[in-house]
Amino acid sequence: MATKSLICLEEYEEEARSILDRNAWGYYSSGATTEYTLRDNVQAYNRYSIFPRVLVDVSLIDMSVRLLGDTIDMPIGISPTAMQCLAHPDGEKATARAAARMGTCLTLSSWSTTNIEEVAKHNGSHSFRWFQLYVYKDNNLTIDLVRRAEREGFKALVVTVDTPELGLRYGDKRNKFSLPRHLKLANFSERDSSSLASSGGSALQEYVKKLIDPSLVWDGIDWLRSITRLPIVLKGVLRADDAREAMKHDIQGILVSNHGARQLDTVPATVD
Amino acid sequence: MATKSLICLEEYEEEARSILDRNAWGYYSSGATTEYTLRDNVQAYNRYSIFPRVLVDVSLIDMSVRLLGDTIDMPIGISPTAMQCLAHPDGEKATARAAARMGTCLTLSSWSTTNIEEVAKHNGSHSFRWFQLYVYKDNNLTIDLVRRAEREGFKALVVTVDTPELGLRYGDKRNKFSLPRHLKLANFSERDSSSLASSGGSALQEYVKKLIDPSLVWDGIDWLRSITRLPIVLKGVLRADDAREAMKHDIQGILVSNHGARQLDTVPATVD
Amino acid sequence: MATKSLICLEEYEEEARSILDRNAWGYYSSGATTEYTLRDNVQAYNRYSIFPRVLVDVSLIDMSVRLLGDTIDMPIGISPTAMQCLAHPDGEKATARAAARMGTCLTLSSWSTTNIEEVAKHNGSHSFRWFQLYVYKDNNLTIDLVRRAEREGFKALVVTVDTPELGLRYGDKRNKFSLPRHLKLANFSERDSSSLASSGGSALQEYVKKLIDPSLVWDGIDWLRSITRLPIVLKGVLRADDAREAMKHDIQGILVSNHGARQLDTVPATVD
Amino acid sequence: MATKSLICLEEYEEEARSILDRNAWGYYSSGATTEYTLRDNVQAYNRYSIFPRVLVDVSLIDMSVRLLGDTIDMPIGISPTAMQCLAHPDGEKATARAAARMGTCLTLSSWSTTNIEEVAKHNGSHSFRWFQLYVYKDNNLTIDLVRRAEREGFKALVVTVDTPELGLRYGDKRNKFSLPRHLKLANFSERDSSSLASSGGSALQEYVKKLIDPSLVWDGIDWLRSITRLPIVLKGVLRADDAREAMKHDIQGILVSNHGARQLDTVPATVD
Repeated sequence: MATKSLICLEEYEEEARSILDRNAWGYYSSGATTEYTLRDNVQAYNRYSIFPRVLVDVSLIDMSVRLLGDTIDMPIGISPTAMQCLAHPDGEKATARAAARMGTCLTLSSWSTTNIEEVAKHNGSHSFRWFQLYVYKDNNLTIDLVRRAEREGFKALVVTVDTPELGLRYGDKRNKFSLPRHLKLANFSERDSSSLASSGGSALQEYVKKLIDPSLVWDGIDWLRSITRLPIVLKGVLRADDAREAMKHDIQGILVSNHGARQLDTVPATVD
Repeated sequence: MATKSLICLEEYEEEARSILDRNAWGYYSSGATTEYTLRDNVQAYNRYSIFPRVLVDVSLIDMSVRLLGDTIDMPIGISPTAMQCLAHPDGEKATARAAARMGTCLTLSSWSTTNIEEVAKHNGSHSFRWFQLYVYKDNNLTIDLVRRAEREGFKALVVTVDTPELGLRYGDKRNKFSLPRHLKLANFSERDSSSLASSGGSALQEYVKKLIDPSLVWDGIDWLRSITRLPIVLKGVLRADDAREAMKHDIQGILVSNHGARQLDTVPATVD
Repeated sequence: MATKSLICLEEYEEEARSILDRNAWGYYSSGATTEYTLRDNVQAYNRYSIFPRVLVDVSLIDMSVRLLGDTIDMPIGISPTAMQCLAHPDGEKATARAAARMGTCLTLSSWSTTNIEEVAKHNGSHSFRWFQLYVYKDNNLTIDLVRRAEREGFKALVVTVDTPELGLRYGDKRNKFSLPRHLKLANFSERDSSSLASSGGSALQEYVKKLIDPSLVWDGIDWLRSITRLPIVLKGVLRADDAREAMKHDIQGILVSNHGARQLDTVPATVD
Repeated sequence: MATKSLICLEEYEEEARSILDRNAWGYYSSGATTEYTLRDNVQAYNRYSIFPRVLVDVSLIDMSVRLLGDTIDMPIGISPTAMQCLAHPDGEKATARAAARMGTCLTLSSWSTTNIEEVAKHNGSHSFRWFQLYVYKDNNLTIDLVRRAEREGFKALVVTVDTPELGLRYGDKRNKFSLPRHLKLANFSERDSSSLASSGGSALQEYVKKLIDPSLVWDGIDWLRSITRLPIVLKGVLRADDAREAMKHDIQGILVSNHGARQLDTVPATVD
């Protein structure tokens, strides 16, 4: 990719569409079923107006915020997105360096194509990084990820709670989405990521069906709480009653998200 | 039709449009006049948001519901649609087998291109099937249909009450819709379905004008009630006062429906 | 025009667009300025839902209504539209015959291309006809029209009160709208309609500026009331306070109308 | 430009698009970022309906209004727009003559391509003119502009308070907007307008960053109040609390404006 002058998000998106192959573009761009909420996630921002105050000194601007006891330079962080080497050979390493340079939070996906240890190295000694986690049917898989995240200086666990099954994404189903041979889920042994070659539909959907625990309830969160001292953040909470329930389980935060509209269609836009 | 991998309703619709002839596609796809409600029937679903609860055990899912004393495996059934052999030679037989396999309810249209007896055979001994009925000017026609439905194990009568005249569908009028010669309304004698060749406009509209009773009022429902012990469900009720009136006439259920937006335009979307 | 099978209003409109010349089509189809209300006049109908009652005897339907003491067969009449011979050589004569045949009300425009006497003849002896009127700067012009309408059996005067100036219609301005040489405003002498040849913009706009009284207020209506015993209907009232004012001036009715969205843009849709 | 018959704003806009080069058209037509508010500024007018009163004498119309003690012929004036010679060689001189002929207010932009003295000459001795002002980091620049405006008969200062930084306009950034060599900001010395050649992005954005004071608060307005007796109008106020604050600082008026949607996107439409 020659250096082009891209000036807004829409141009980055257009550039990505022209560079990526169909399998990768389909994976990154698709939302659940009719993609109503995918579109609404963007349009919803227009439903909120900014009423700017005038004659305010803006010569020095401090957008830093405190988050679970740490400070980041701006209230915008990097959400976990899987398999970034699909898009660029530097993948998660480049993202980790960017987060460090911008002084903001990186949340690394469990399903990264670069392993925890290498990402930590590129994120640097002083950075603020969290680790995203699914709860696996096999407790040992989960425990192994937690221990490695602790060892590598990740400061919180972000547990995805809206994916007992992977959302139905027509794009991935049409493309029979699979991870190319030269890539792998780098945090897992060969055995545990081997199913990511498609046997007819989305390989990722089959992977989730095989490994992720669809019977996970609040007890499972309590168990996770019992095996680590890291703060736990639940990702994917959309209801007030679920947020209140989280407070009873010694949870340090929730991340209100509809998973990029990739899990269920016609859920509310994230900003709503 | 070669086996294609169709993954969503929109692709089935697209495939049907490419396979069916104009007469058949026009019949299935058209709504009343400007088709405002036809479009709204679909768009209305986006006006309702899903607020999913997280950390619920979904490893085993039971969607079965009880309906007039019977149980079906899911709260989605097959509504009566007429003349299915227009679309595929197996027509209502295939639909009957599909309903049995999915463990759900089949409501057979009176205007099927396969007769009651054969549909019942394909639906099987244990299945849950209802029979859709118009009230004819000629009582004997109505009585004959009721007796055959009773004999063949249909468990309820679904009386369409929103069709004193057939809705004005521009598509059918343009195409001078008619049933092809090799098909017939299989539940009727040659005489009673012979008018289904167009004499200028939609043949079905002429058929309804000739045979269906436009003066049908609640007395007619009472008469139907008096000649059968089957539960009666009124199909096409859109008003609360009509629903309350139904309760006074020993009616077992109503089916809230705008007839696929095919009768009157600018009525509310069914889901509304 | 060969007889085509046109089945809905949209097809008649499309047919007209293909047959009429630019001057005539522009005149009939254009609304004021940006045509926001022109579009809204149609779309507004979708904001009202029909909630049909079922099991009502519709074998005999009577849609007749009483209007200022007379009965018409349906609550739909023919509004005054000017210069109908622009569209078809039979013009207002054909419209008058159609109104008689359908048993409904004809309101004849003052600016018809067929004179009052001939229209009355084609409308027949028993028909229900009203006459639309502007109040002219020259009282004699107005009086002449009133006397002729009385003599020819018109049963009410419909006074247009929303046109002190003609609305700004871009289509007519671009086309420099004018009445073709073989047509004339048939209710007026050569002198009083001669300005209908364009001198740069819409000829009709210039005609209104020259002849119609822009200083007309309620006194002018009182004057009209004093010179005739015919019922008077005010056409173009959009406000409740104007409707109440009308009641103080011995007015028999109002016609709520935005003049086909041709006078002012961004007024409410007529049905609203 | 040959004289064409342009009949509405849309046609003037279309004509301008066809005549102007990309740099100039981009500058005039672009709004901030996604241009949501740019579109909404226009569409918002459709959210307000006109309810016209009928039978009102409109033969003589007086639209004059009093504004800060003076009278203008209509409640529509000319807002400050910068660098008008980009569009036409006569630029601000033509605008000044037009304002005088229409009897309405001209607000001259500080960033005009014609200097204050020449614009005053073309606006004439009796005209009603105001001067738009930014507060510069260098007080001498501001004082010089104020004195010249006073001397040339400008009757108020319109201080722009919504531009501590220039809004991000993709069009200007893509075009690397710059003032052509033959034009300059005519109210400033060569030194103070020299940065208007682009060094990579919008030259105007760089100019604002270099010269305009981003730390301006209410104290700065008090200072401006102390150096002149001219009425002061704050331009760009969108909040009620800012309007109330203005009253405490001896400000004579506010101009509710979102700067043509050029500063911040998703602010409310001006008419709202």
